[in-house]
Amino acid sequence: MEILITNDDGWGAKGIVTLLRLMEQFGHVTVIAPDGTRSGMSNAITFSHITMQKVEETERHSIYTTNGTPSDCVKLGIHIIYGGKRPDLLVSGINHGSNAAINVIYSGTMGAVFVGAENGIKSIGFSIDDMSADPDLTQFEPYITQITKDILAKRDVPYGMCWNVNAPIGEIHGIRPTRQCKGYWDEEVSAHQEADGSTYYLLGGAFHNNEPEADDTDEWALKHGYISLTVSTIDTTWKEKNA
Amino acid sequence: MEILITNDDGWGAKGIVTLLRLMEQFGHVTVIAPDGTRSGMSNAITFSHITMQKVEETERHSIYTTNGTPSDCVKLGIHIIYGGKRPDLLVSGINHGSNAAINVIYSGTMGAVFVGAENGIKSIGFSIDDMSADPDLTQFEPYITQITKDILAKRDVPYGMCWNVNAPIGEIHGIRPTRQCKGYWDEEVSAHQEADGSTYYLLGGAFHNNEPEADDTDEWALKHGYISLTVSTIDTTWKEKNA
Repeated sequence: MEILITNDDGWGAKGIVTLLRLMEQFGHVTVIAPDGTRSGMSNAITFSHITMQKVEETERHSIYTTNGTPSDCVKLGIHIIYGGKRPDLLVSGINHGSNAAINVIYSGTMGAVFVGAENGIKSIGFSIDDMSADPDLTQFEPYITQITKDILAKRDVPYGMCWNVNAPIGEIHGIRPTRQCKGYWDEEVSAHQEADGSTYYLLGGAFHNNEPEADDTDEWALKHGYISLTVSTIDTTWKEKNA
Repeated sequence: MEILITNDDGWGAKGIVTLLRLMEQFGHVTVIAPDGTRSGMSNAITFSHITMQKVEETERHSIYTTNGTPSDCVKLGIHIIYGGKRPDLLVSGINHGSNAAINVIYSGTMGAVFVGAENGIKSIGFSIDDMSADPDLTQFEPYITQITKDILAKRDVPYGMCWNVNAPIGEIHGIRPTRQCKGYWDEEVSAHQEADGSTYYLLGGAFHNNEPEADDTDEWALKHGYISLTVSTIDTTWKEKNA
């Protein structure tokens, strides 16, 4: 069993170090992760020089870092480290911050998951609704192991299927099967002045939930102390069930 | 009628200049586009200083450029240029290169469209299957006008719906309603040597079509001289019809 791990918070983040330890239960692990934070990189790819360094090798894992994006990481993993062979599993995260609702389209963590799904690899993104550098992951850990076991046991995963798993802060009451909540980021750009009087802008703002009463969304699950498990897809075609 | 235009090839690219001229038929146009190419930027957003300059203003249009990404452009447009008000329409492109099949998840052009859809704006991406700096857009132009008219006439567009329109090179035989073709980029990372002997990597490769016989895909349409019109969504939740 060969497992590829990446993230968008960079190698050394608590989330990916935890994921490495958990995934060693299942097989040999190759980590390839950005050399620093790549949050909000979505599925961005790099068209110029990409570099990669091996930083550690043991019997149970190899660790590489790169100046590229999370999506670049998966491509380097498949085509350079594995020589074109696909691993049995790709896991991305544990992201420091929720990738529920519309966050999924901006997320570098989920971007890597989508590249895995494009390549026919079982791919799972794990995130926790806590942006701090030192989130408490102890309650999430056994769920990550169980969800990974369940997905490894699946046969015939169809093209494009992948998984977006988010954990709440604090007490976890269980897992809820969810869908992506409808909503948007609002009031999210602010203007600031440089010392020379020129203007620059910063993104920020707040998430607006279009359907706070719906109890089948990922946002609802996180707000009520449940892990959200959304079966996801890389197919952007509109289907009637979107309505 | 207020129309927001952006792209990922940068202000000054033939595609966006053409789109500006076409959209002036419908109302006042605001262009905000990157100051250079941002291809492959997907939905990437910028967390540090973003700058913006107004480069032109006439009665019929305003033009701004930014150091940001296509997704940043839409956010700056809504929150800074429009002060929070949503425009009636967002169009992105005309991209120099196809955004059919899996290209859609990497595309900065379609990234901007997804941000528009998140914000409840009717949003359309236009692309041509020609990566040259000077593609022949004359046959595509009347279709762009017609498709825009049809979409402007729609009422009650549901949350997340948007449009991905791709034109073939050469003779255009008409429009086909399509879905995103299943496939993946293969053999896509190559290793190269610097003068000092160190290694760097470049993305490249070729698209592998998993379903070349299916006649309802965007890839099929482009290969057979048709414009592909895929109704798209920002909802990444798996639905049974994905199978």
